[in-house]
Amino acid sequence: MKKVAIVMGSDSDVEIGKKCASTLSELLVPSTVHVISAHRSPEEASAFARSARENGYGAIVAIAGKAAHLGGVLAAYTTLPVIAVPVSSKDLGGLDALLSSVQMPPGIPVATVAIDGGVNAAILACQIIAVSDDELMSRLEEQRTRMHEKVLEKDRQIMERMK
Amino acid sequence: MKKVAIVMGSDSDVEIGKKCASTLSELLVPSTVHVISAHRSPEEASAFARSARENGYGAIVAIAGKAAHLGGVLAAYTTLPVIAVPVSSKDLGGLDALLSSVQMPPGIPVATVAIDGGVNAAILACQIIAVSDDELMSRLEEQRTRMHEKVLEKDRQIMERMK
Amino acid sequence: MKKVAIVMGSDSDVEIGKKCASTLSELLVPSTVHVISAHRSPEEASAFARSARENGYGAIVAIAGKAAHLGGVLAAYTTLPVIAVPVSSKDLGGLDALLSSVQMPPGIPVATVAIDGGVNAAILACQIIAVSDDELMSRLEEQRTRMHEKVLEKDRQIMERMK
Amino acid sequence: MKKVAIVMGSDSDVEIGKKCASTLSELLVPSTVHVISAHRSPEEASAFARSARENGYGAIVAIAGKAAHLGGVLAAYTTLPVIAVPVSSKDLGGLDALLSSVQMPPGIPVATVAIDGGVNAAILACQIIAVSDDELMSRLEEQRTRMHEKVLEKDRQIMERMK
Amino acid sequence: MKKVAIVMGSDSDVEIGKKCASTLSELLVPSTVHVISAHRSPEEASAFARSARENGYGAIVAIAGKAAHLGGVLAAYTTLPVIAVPVSSKDLGGLDALLSSVQMPPGIPVATVAIDGGVNAAILACQIIAVSDDELMSRLEEQRTRMHEKVLEKDRQIMERMK
Amino acid sequence: MKKVAIVMGSDSDVEIGKKCASTLSELLVPSTVHVISAHRSPEEASAFARSARENGYGAIVAIAGKAAHLGGVLAAYTTLPVIAVPVSSKDLGGLDALLSSVQMPPGIPVATVAIDGGVNAAILACQIIAVSDDELMSRLEEQRTRMHEKVLEKDRQIMERMK
Amino acid sequence: MKKVAIVMGSDSDVEIGKKCASTLSELLVPSTVHVISAHRSPEEASAFARSARENGYGAIVAIAGKAAHLGGVLAAYTTLPVIAVPVSSKDLGGLDALLSSVQMPPGIPVATVAIDGGVNAAILACQIIAVSDDELMSRLEEQRTRMHEKVLEKDRQIMERMK
Amino acid sequence: MKKVAIVMGSDSDVEIGKKCASTLSELLVPSTVHVISAHRSPEEASAFARSARENGYGAIVAIAGKAAHLGGVLAAYTTLPVIAVPVSSKDLGGLDALLSSVQMPPGIPVATVAIDGGVNAAILACQIIAVSDDELMSRLEEQRTRMHEKVLEKDRQIMERMK
Repeated sequence: MKKVAIVMGSDSDVEIGKKCASTLSELLVPSTVHVISAHRSPEEASAFARSARENGYGAIVAIAGKAAHLGGVLAAYTTLPVIAVPVSSKDLGGLDALLSSVQMPPGIPVATVAIDGGVNAAILACQIIAVSDDELMSRLEEQRTRMHEKVLEKDRQIMERMK
Repeated sequence: MKKVAIVMGSDSDVEIGKKCASTLSELLVPSTVHVISAHRSPEEASAFARSARENGYGAIVAIAGKAAHLGGVLAAYTTLPVIAVPVSSKDLGGLDALLSSVQMPPGIPVATVAIDGGVNAAILACQIIAVSDDELMSRLEEQRTRMHEKVLEKDRQIMERMK
Repeated sequence: MKKVAIVMGSDSDVEIGKKCASTLSELLVPSTVHVISAHRSPEEASAFARSARENGYGAIVAIAGKAAHLGGVLAAYTTLPVIAVPVSSKDLGGLDALLSSVQMPPGIPVATVAIDGGVNAAILACQIIAVSDDELMSRLEEQRTRMHEKVLEKDRQIMERMK
Repeated sequence: MKKVAIVMGSDSDVEIGKKCASTLSELLVPSTVHVISAHRSPEEASAFARSARENGYGAIVAIAGKAAHLGGVLAAYTTLPVIAVPVSSKDLGGLDALLSSVQMPPGIPVATVAIDGGVNAAILACQIIAVSDDELMSRLEEQRTRMHEKVLEKDRQIMERMK
Repeated sequence: MKKVAIVMGSDSDVEIGKKCASTLSELLVPSTVHVISAHRSPEEASAFARSARENGYGAIVAIAGKAAHLGGVLAAYTTLPVIAVPVSSKDLGGLDALLSSVQMPPGIPVATVAIDGGVNAAILACQIIAVSDDELMSRLEEQRTRMHEKVLEKDRQIMERMK
Repeated sequence: MKKVAIVMGSDSDVEIGKKCASTLSELLVPSTVHVISAHRSPEEASAFARSARENGYGAIVAIAGKAAHLGGVLAAYTTLPVIAVPVSSKDLGGLDALLSSVQMPPGIPVATVAIDGGVNAAILACQIIAVSDDELMSRLEEQRTRMHEKVLEKDRQIMERMK
Repeated sequence: MKKVAIVMGSDSDVEIGKKCASTLSELLVPSTVHVISAHRSPEEASAFARSARENGYGAIVAIAGKAAHLGGVLAAYTTLPVIAVPVSSKDLGGLDALLSSVQMPPGIPVATVAIDGGVNAAILACQIIAVSDDELMSRLEEQRTRMHEKVLEKDRQIMERMK
Repeated sequence: MKKVAIVMGSDSDVEIGKKCASTLSELLVPSTVHVISAHRSPEEASAFARSARENGYGAIVAIAGKAAHLGGVLAAYTTLPVIAVPVSSKDLGGLDALLSSVQMPPGIPVATVAIDGGVNAAILACQIIAVSDDELMSRLEEQRTRMHEKVLEKDRQIMERMK
């Protein structure tokens, strides 16, 4: 099965990276975790992206804050889908990272998910791989069913509590 | 080969839809184009999304402006990757559509591209399908090469002109 | 008397839901509280909205954060007034939920109140029901009088304190 | 039947006011149109709001731009539902009018619709009156059906065109 | 000497009101402090503004948060200068109060100072009164000199510390 | 009578400056108009502000766009009230000029009016001078009455037209 | 003398590039103009930056819009000063390009100037080179003097016109 | 060697100033630290900037928050490169300081770095001085190498931890 690469621009993003990794793990999708900076280790970034496909990756998750160039820089060196997770900060709340990730010029898309959305990046990566993997698609559907049941359970609890 | 569904929330988004369709066409990926509103034809939206996988789709592109719920509503009914194109407007410039598309809660991701980014939505859809389709991946790489050459050509021209 | 439905997109919004419920209770308007997600339990959302009128509801309050589609999704399935309470978050402060709620396209309005405005949603729901209920209108006027008196009392206190 | 008051803060908002009035007219709901400024004719504003209920109004639509205080000022003098339409401008695109309308403090809600959303303000006013008027509710449902059919028609057209 | 009225929209703004009052006190300008809500005690607001000039006030400071209509509502009933202090909140940081205060339509200005700027509102009120009061102008100049000296002292300290 | 200085940071702001000047002229308040740049003619800026009081000015209006430092720079050299008019631009719509003008640190206030609000700057300047000038205050009240009547006239016209 | 490199991310930025080049030319600083895309010709970008110093450049100006990664990508491969000019667009007005350029993480600065600020980028580049070039510093001072005189001339003209 | 001046608008910015100073110290570039306010000590600001070049400075770092005029005011009196560090605040998160710093009008550039970016301001100042100082350029390259190695080390650690 294709692997997912989780690339963080800084080790301060590790909590989001972990959530991403554990969501992938729950869906039985193999992943590897990396710290690669678009600016401080740019050659590792380009080398990683360039060889990602032949190294068995099916998607790359790029987690970065502020002027978050990581997703775009990786996407410049691969035609694999690159998913960006903009990271929030206490100044602009992640608006900078969101715009830096999503507003890519025509030609090089970056699939952007919510600010701090490590879980959704993992699910999106699985959805991408599952396009040609019926078993994974089934696991995604089961996960969806579990989420659904959790909401129903919360609904029952709140009705109890608020009576 | 998997098809791509291009769904517009309103026929006023048709220019972006056309760019998306013609980019898919250049990459030889089949697509169909639809006008389905998350709010005015919600049952068609859920029905479309629910049956998209079995109908041979590999990805759905949702093009919508303002409080752009279309991507999220489609994503709620399928585990296929859903790509959102937020549409600009003259009041808030598309910031509303961008935030409505990208800030999805954990569990249901929507892969968001740039405001008015119909071309990038098409390329991302192809990248997703190409994860398990080496020929399409090659066509994406050739497209990348052509874009690269165009930039080099522009560079030569500008050097000429500015001399 | 018509009831008010308080629907939260997630049980993390419960504090706002409670304020809404207790304000309705003070005004002697019956309400029920629910957790229904536009994305994780979309069929419950559409079913709830579709039958809300015949189930005796006069208005629906939708409480949701981030890409807050809940109000719009409920409004798509009912012609009852739907009131949205955008929920703040620590990244964008609720601007995302506000724009996702208020910027609805022509045809399907969502009556949006302030970020985290659970109390005002309740009062607005009462104002709506009171259009044809003179007793409730009187209770709203009495509540207004009490608020007025509280401000006058605060004014007297501050004059004392600042002397 | 209850009437709807359409109040514009300035006669430069007349295009939005007209759309609001014609939508009400299509739904057979009587309305009157006014120019009343929260700042330049404040006494008319308070007098109008204070007597609106006894004058047979069921809802008030307040259309205003920039620091749009009109909705809040009217709401301060009545317990009828007040609906605000923030008006866009070329500087901040209507963000100022939106925040001035929607961010009301606890106690005095203003039901805010989209920037320049005159049509939705009319529909919301009808939904409010329809809570106790089954015939109007039926007309709203018919309008919904017509909108639905229009979307289906657009969908058929686009499929034709894009074939 | 003309007095300054400090009007707070809510007693939660009292810390900013106190700073304003103590700054006025340091400059020997008499002031009174009030809690008057544009929405919950609108008649007190209009009455206060209407009689402010004959009651000996030279300027009014309006302190309010969120959809801060207080400054505009007071200004609608007086030709005295009205100074607005927009109050920050944890959701939008005071951007709502700032735009609601400053973006007044032509005809009724509100002199807006910084978010939470109670001290500057006081100084501005004094500058206004000092236009025809040379002694107060001298006290403002002395305050300016003291501020200047404080900065020079801080500069000396930092040079010491950083050596 | 005290004069009002209208200072523009650039001659591209001349339309706003003219509106300001003609409003002052209608209210029979003398004014002079200047082009002084905080950055390109800073010494003229400081010299002008320093001598403004003794040259008979009662208030200074500073009209500037983008990083609008003009108001703050003039205010640093005078204790006269300084009124800032932030100028809109096609990129950020004047948000930059607004924040640069209004967010002054404690000690040096700048009285900020709406983006492109040349008329309101003039009226505010008159209100400031009128604090000790009953005749000007009367003229302001008459202007207010004329504005009031204009709104009533517009109200009559719209009622005619919409019948 | 050190040269300045003007690098545009796309040839649609050519008007800004030309202004930058002509300003450098007026100050007698040699420059070259390039079209290099951070995403479509990333290897040219890194190669250019890596060899810029040895090729005689003293500063690099990076002109790019939307998710403007160009400045950061060039800065990652050189220790020469990199100046970013964020380019405006009709959707978000250049806020995206501004934040993508300026919010660089610690270690790799990008000196950002105003949106569409091609002239200022040129002047900043000259100021940088002039740190060790007294003749260029003199030319900058002369340019400053000319700007100063132009403002004085505009001031005289406006006084004439407004008399 | 040229010195770098670190100028803070207020001593509340001292933590950012210290980081800037210690980064300069690590790179063996001499610096001095000052508290000078654009508004409360404007004459010290202009005097400092005017004599900075002859006093041996090669660049000035201006650290200021809110309506951050400091960079622009210093730049108005010198042709040395001025670097602005916008300081965050709890209301608007530093967006005000960023726009006040970066959006300078044509003629007087201010090189703006990230919000709270004291370290990057120091590195940029060194890059500027290093344009004509090969030894400093080497130290910058060594610093770059150390940063690079730190990222590689973090990458190894994360791979260990996540295994």
